[in-house]
Amino acid sequence: MKYAACIEYDGSAYFGWQYQDHAPSVQGDVEAAISRVANHPVKIVCAGRTDTGVHGIGQIIHFESESDRSIDAWQFGTNSNLPDTAVMRWVKPVDDRFHARFSAGARRYRYIVLNRDTRPAILSKRVAWTRKKLNHELMHQASQHLLGEHDFTSLRAAGCQAKHAVRTIHDIGVSREGDFIYLDVKANAFLYHMVRNIAGTLFTVGEGKNSVDWVAELIAKQDRREAGATAPAGGLYFVHVDYPKQYELPEEYHLPWFNV
Amino acid sequence: MKYAACIEYDGSAYFGWQYQDHAPSVQGDVEAAISRVANHPVKIVCAGRTDTGVHGIGQIIHFESESDRSIDAWQFGTNSNLPDTAVMRWVKPVDDRFHARFSAGARRYRYIVLNRDTRPAILSKRVAWTRKKLNHELMHQASQHLLGEHDFTSLRAAGCQAKHAVRTIHDIGVSREGDFIYLDVKANAFLYHMVRNIAGTLFTVGEGKNSVDWVAELIAKQDRREAGATAPAGGLYFVHVDYPKQYELPEEYHLPWFNV
Repeated sequence: MKYAACIEYDGSAYFGWQYQDHAPSVQGDVEAAISRVANHPVKIVCAGRTDTGVHGIGQIIHFESESDRSIDAWQFGTNSNLPDTAVMRWVKPVDDRFHARFSAGARRYRYIVLNRDTRPAILSKRVAWTRKKLNHELMHQASQHLLGEHDFTSLRAAGCQAKHAVRTIHDIGVSREGDFIYLDVKANAFLYHMVRNIAGTLFTVGEGKNSVDWVAELIAKQDRREAGATAPAGGLYFVHVDYPKQYELPEEYHLPWFNV
Repeated sequence: MKYAACIEYDGSAYFGWQYQDHAPSVQGDVEAAISRVANHPVKIVCAGRTDTGVHGIGQIIHFESESDRSIDAWQFGTNSNLPDTAVMRWVKPVDDRFHARFSAGARRYRYIVLNRDTRPAILSKRVAWTRKKLNHELMHQASQHLLGEHDFTSLRAAGCQAKHAVRTIHDIGVSREGDFIYLDVKANAFLYHMVRNIAGTLFTVGEGKNSVDWVAELIAKQDRREAGATAPAGGLYFVHVDYPKQYELPEEYHLPWFNV
């Protein structure tokens, strides 16, 4: 039997998604919890691995088990075996053809910056922070140069192992709510550190260091050295994954203050 | 020279406001940081001590020092000596008559409950949680019975050391934003655990266990055993303190997602 599930996690508690022998990982915690409910070792596959410090709101996984458990038993059992920093939002049986990674369509990320004089305390490690006043309207205009299919070599991290850097951004925008600035990006797939590099690059526009149209030139140059610095992990949230309608996955629940 | 300052802190990192020899306290961290900047031991006085796990957005303190420091030196110096879990939002010189506790007028608290099927992960220890669907409109109606001057014996914790239980609630209300329910209370002063007991009591109305008018009867009975359980500390935020206009304190900055 194959199951799909949605996992929310506080990335500040983990050294990333991927299992590691000697450091806490989301995969490690979730596999241990599900395995206890299944009463046999369970391996999980996720839609997209996240780095150390990056948060998940709508991470999707699949796993297989022949153990006879109700949906409530899977969910409540897993959650009672998970620490405070991760939770299974929902779980449901899926067709054997479903694969959390290979069936995934577009993915959505949100990057959050607190833009005020003093650093966050209550939301420390849950938002990035910059003291310099950012013009979010200029950032939004600049972001529109990234829409569509481009070679994103300029916004790709050095360690990126993708075969090429061509990706399609379906939707991108920057908005402000009080002291918070949100960067929302939806794309067919992402390069390593791509959202954090987009954020760091748009910051330079918001601060007035670069013009709106400089972003178009940057992409054309295909040179990583020209872009802004990689923005910190704590501001990044993996929000949503699209899957074909046939799998009838529940809509994940959103945290309203993320407004996504 | 006397200074007033505003402190934001993540209560989940502390065993309450008050200094303790062998456990982290907000007072301990803030006094150590300011003392380093002043280059002599500094004692601080706060508007209202908070319990273990309770958060502060607009906690006000005062301290005295003859050290010659600019306002920026006080603020940036203190913040660079504070851990991630506390921050000085502003500081300013004040008249000698100012006293963070004795000059304080009404105080404002917000209690936040996440009301969805699964517990929080990203906002663990930053919001309370209940799975039972709460009717926030009934909770709001019930809360209106608490407006004005009452003897709040029924909502006072066993360990409360106040001489009497008469307090005046200036403003109280319950609202919902998506899965979050907010209880906002402004009063001239609060009894020990009063806001958390109000929250626990209103939950019983929101769940349909008690009627709206039962809250009026509860207050009239002056019996703590009749009220709801004390709601958890992690949902409580100390938001604001009123001071006489003459002190010209800055308006504190709010975290917009608290909407306060």
